[in-house]
Amino acid sequence: MAKRTVYCGLVDESYLEQRVTLKGWVQKRRDLGGVVFLDLRDREGIVQVVFNPETSKEALAIADSCRSEYVIEVSGMVIKRSDAAINPKMKTGEFEVLADKIEILSKAKTPPFTIEDDQQVSDEVRMKYRYLDLRRPKMAQNMLLRTKTTRAIRRYLDDNDFLDIETPYLAKSTPEGARDYLVPSRVHPGHFYALPQSPQIFKQLLMAAGMDRYYQIVRCFRDEDLRGDRQPEFTQVDIETTFLTAEEIQTYTEGLIQAVMKEVKGIEITEAFPRMTWQEAMDRFGSDKPDTRFAMELIDLSETVKDVEFKVFQMALEQGGVVKALNAKGAASRYSRKDMDQLGQYVGQFGAKGLAWVKVEEDGLKGPIAKFLVDATDDIVAATNAEVGDLLLFGADSFEVVSAALGALRNRLGAELELIDQTAFNFLWVVDWPQFEYDAEAGRFVSAHHPFTMPKASDVEKLATDPQSVHAEAYDIVLNGYELGGGSLRIHTREVQEQMFKTLGFAPREMQEQFGFLLDALDYGFPPHGGIALGLDRFAMLLAGEDNIREVIAFPKNGRAIDPMSQAPSSVSPLQLYELNLDITAELDETDE
Amino acid sequence: MAKRTVYCGLVDESYLEQRVTLKGWVQKRRDLGGVVFLDLRDREGIVQVVFNPETSKEALAIADSCRSEYVIEVSGMVIKRSDAAINPKMKTGEFEVLADKIEILSKAKTPPFTIEDDQQVSDEVRMKYRYLDLRRPKMAQNMLLRTKTTRAIRRYLDDNDFLDIETPYLAKSTPEGARDYLVPSRVHPGHFYALPQSPQIFKQLLMAAGMDRYYQIVRCFRDEDLRGDRQPEFTQVDIETTFLTAEEIQTYTEGLIQAVMKEVKGIEITEAFPRMTWQEAMDRFGSDKPDTRFAMELIDLSETVKDVEFKVFQMALEQGGVVKALNAKGAASRYSRKDMDQLGQYVGQFGAKGLAWVKVEEDGLKGPIAKFLVDATDDIVAATNAEVGDLLLFGADSFEVVSAALGALRNRLGAELELIDQTAFNFLWVVDWPQFEYDAEAGRFVSAHHPFTMPKASDVEKLATDPQSVHAEAYDIVLNGYELGGGSLRIHTREVQEQMFKTLGFAPREMQEQFGFLLDALDYGFPPHGGIALGLDRFAMLLAGEDNIREVIAFPKNGRAIDPMSQAPSSVSPLQLYELNLDITAELDETDE
Repeated sequence: MAKRTVYCGLVDESYLEQRVTLKGWVQKRRDLGGVVFLDLRDREGIVQVVFNPETSKEALAIADSCRSEYVIEVSGMVIKRSDAAINPKMKTGEFEVLADKIEILSKAKTPPFTIEDDQQVSDEVRMKYRYLDLRRPKMAQNMLLRTKTTRAIRRYLDDNDFLDIETPYLAKSTPEGARDYLVPSRVHPGHFYALPQSPQIFKQLLMAAGMDRYYQIVRCFRDEDLRGDRQPEFTQVDIETTFLTAEEIQTYTEGLIQAVMKEVKGIEITEAFPRMTWQEAMDRFGSDKPDTRFAMELIDLSETVKDVEFKVFQMALEQGGVVKALNAKGAASRYSRKDMDQLGQYVGQFGAKGLAWVKVEEDGLKGPIAKFLVDATDDIVAATNAEVGDLLLFGADSFEVVSAALGALRNRLGAELELIDQTAFNFLWVVDWPQFEYDAEAGRFVSAHHPFTMPKASDVEKLATDPQSVHAEAYDIVLNGYELGGGSLRIHTREVQEQMFKTLGFAPREMQEQFGFLLDALDYGFPPHGGIALGLDRFAMLLAGEDNIREVIAFPKNGRAIDPMSQAPSSVSPLQLYELNLDITAELDETDE
Repeated sequence: MAKRTVYCGLVDESYLEQRVTLKGWVQKRRDLGGVVFLDLRDREGIVQVVFNPETSKEALAIADSCRSEYVIEVSGMVIKRSDAAINPKMKTGEFEVLADKIEILSKAKTPPFTIEDDQQVSDEVRMKYRYLDLRRPKMAQNMLLRTKTTRAIRRYLDDNDFLDIETPYLAKSTPEGARDYLVPSRVHPGHFYALPQSPQIFKQLLMAAGMDRYYQIVRCFRDEDLRGDRQPEFTQVDIETTFLTAEEIQTYTEGLIQAVMKEVKGIEITEAFPRMTWQEAMDRFGSDKPDTRFAMELIDLSETVKDVEFKVFQMALEQGGVVKALNAKGAASRYSRKDMDQLGQYVGQFGAKGLAWVKVEEDGLKGPIAKFLVDATDDIVAATNAEVGDLLLFGADSFEVVSAALGALRNRLGAELELIDQTAFNFLWVVDWPQFEYDAEAGRFVSAHHPFTMPKASDVEKLATDPQSVHAEAYDIVLNGYELGGGSLRIHTREVQEQMFKTLGFAPREMQEQFGFLLDALDYGFPPHGGIALGLDRFAMLLAGEDNIREVIAFPKNGRAIDPMSQAPSSVSPLQLYELNLDITAELDETDE
């Protein structure tokens, strides 16, 4: 084998009239009147290689025998294509390589799908032959983009004195949070490690250890039911700092994101990211992760419609709820009654009992509920800035339900009405989170972030007496309607941490058993600290313009947590189970294999 | 809180006469005639802070109340110490900070051990309070060194077009290699993921996918019985390349190591690393990972002693074995009979049935077996370059046993006789490995590296007929007697890979079930490829001058695979087991908790 001179996709002017050696996969072979053209592909792109009888009969014959996905090595001269042959759609389209040597390094059967973008191939087949799927230019680009992203993140953090420290994957199962993946111990029968949902406690202990600034690009594990952008394992950019304020941590995070945007997208962001309280985000967008690429905010009509004789509105208000509206500008003509019924069903997923709406026409509001609103028409029109042709959509229920329903509806309408600037990257800090959510099913408070989040200093007193009103030193970074990451200052005194566990319903013994080592550490000079964790898969997905994190993960699992390629998970040998002191209690469903 | 100006350990000339703010832990408080001195510590080191009544009575009072491990913030002026007060043992020993402000950020109980190097604290206590142990300057330095090491590795690989690509941790259990850690699937009862022992197959498939150059600093898992430098999870610098020769891969590896040595140790290595075949390493050093920092090589005396009437030698030679010797120069007087008995027991661990030895004296060889060697004395003296005062030690057995016993003995004597230059970093390539080892217990061949290692082209034919004689395109990188890493070219044709599995005793069905996806991939244009994996923990350990990888791992497990801090592994709830469809078959040993 000769040494490669350059990647196929990087052949450019600087190689003109020079001899190069390329290695790659045959994308396509064409024979035009005794001249063979091979499109040769590697991770950086494609270049055209020409074989003609004048240059080398021998090479021509070998080239002629090549098929798609053969791996070859070719050597030849980079020349300019004739004007007529220039392909402006190809990065290397002005050039071709006139080859005099070719060697077949590996042959290939016809693959189960063509290695091209925009092929109609099922996700299952793509995952089963992932090594072929990743050859597609778009997927190769995604892998390159992800590498660039992590590289930019690391350089930024390295340059700012953060230490890259690894924490254990064989950790301890804790009762808070999602379901753990467990790892049975062979040496300690009946005992299990847990794969960490995040290295939260470890990174806090690294601050106690004086490491000052820590980061890790680290895998996290959650055994939850899967959704579009969830995987059993995912990657987090995990950051923790000592002695910094929430704003200082946010500023570092912005610096990190700016470094990525510049490196990966060539976008320079110089201004600080906007900040919004959690309450404002919920009020204006019905979401704690608002997509601020478009307006169409929620409008509170509770006051405006308080005297309207419409039972749905009245009931909501009487029960302490709200009435809010969206104004879909100019959308009246685009939504039929049938469409409106579908939107009604859609908001039902978020707990809304129905979707009231009116269209704004020359002679007033029209629609099923218009008759109830007659007396309030002018006020509603004024409050919603309504104009002829607008579609007004109402939510009337508790604050939570209205926010969830209209927040989701806003995102759906934003997409359907093409209000969203697809080239924009809108970053936003959502701050001042509530400390707790009330879990009605469990009948107790749960952490909105996690139990180590520091309450606002002024709210510490209320931890025991009025948990609902406690706000936290917590902040989320939001990008285009996705939660990109979340962070907080952490509790660094034993007193507050113990009160937090009590409020969450921990018995003293349970608290000691599960978190005793953290509580002990708080006794020995635990410094003020805080940090953030960013979802790397999601960040890379958004940078790549994809809508599923599978597209930026080399070997993802499918929706049933299976790797269709290697067929993991699989059954294991009786010896393996015997050594682990385990019995399987369920009937084996062999169709799962 | 004010902003920190500089780390305590980095206060130097450039801060002189300037006002600084420091944050850190109180190492020590001293009161000298109404003036309080606090040694303040952070991850970078220690600086002395002075409080006197002239500067601030208030600050002095607070400083006086501080105890060891309190976390404080101080502000003041950096001044030069008086000549008499200069502490040449401290990096910051010429300076001190005259403080006018102090704030206690966190108080501390008296820790279970003093935060100083060279404390006599048991490993178990150190691990239980790891967050305190890591505050010790040596451990903080180790963490910094490890960060620097990974940083240098990443920069080098980034600069050489390697893509950092993540592979799954929830992978498939495979029968080859060590014991897997298993992860039960909740969704697929009776099925298990396995934590990867290495991403070997994934990285090969990334080459099939055209990623060309891959690296990952990745956790690997082996459920093996633990030894001094083993942990259940360890970290590997995992590298794979396409289209390169073994020598080219080795050259990149050398570049990587050179970059680390320069960045971390300030040592410039410009010459290429020496190469030695596996056979030569075994012949000369009795080891496949020879420590070349000292000589004392094995000397083959099989020919020299073939007529000696000593039964042990005769039997070894008759059975096809060898007689070899070590000459411990000038060591005769340092080893008593009792010492020699101990060395005899030591080599017994490596299968030797005893240790024959003689001392070289003015009037010939002396010792228990000297009488047998009388006729061969001159030849033995000549062959071993023996001089008066030398100690000759003999091994007589099969090649394997003699190599193992004398190889280990050589390392022990090298240490005891202080032959080793502790400042040296001797890198060495050991190449041309045998493809297989014969596992007498299992009655079959096992891979010396792994089943994907490519045999030497000239030996492929012998895979089926004469496995023992097949050599591999495999190479290990050795540092100071430790295996730092191992790599190889890989098989890239289905034919050879199937033959390999056959030779290893796989039934066709088993081969298909376990490795079918790899075999399939070999059909679709699998390029020539190869790589290497380096043990990061071990590399960092050697760079730090430690002798256990625990010293360079933030949160290690103890010898029983337990984390004494968090008490992982632990028992889990019946609900968790129920959801996983598992029963525990063993009696629980609660003392393990």
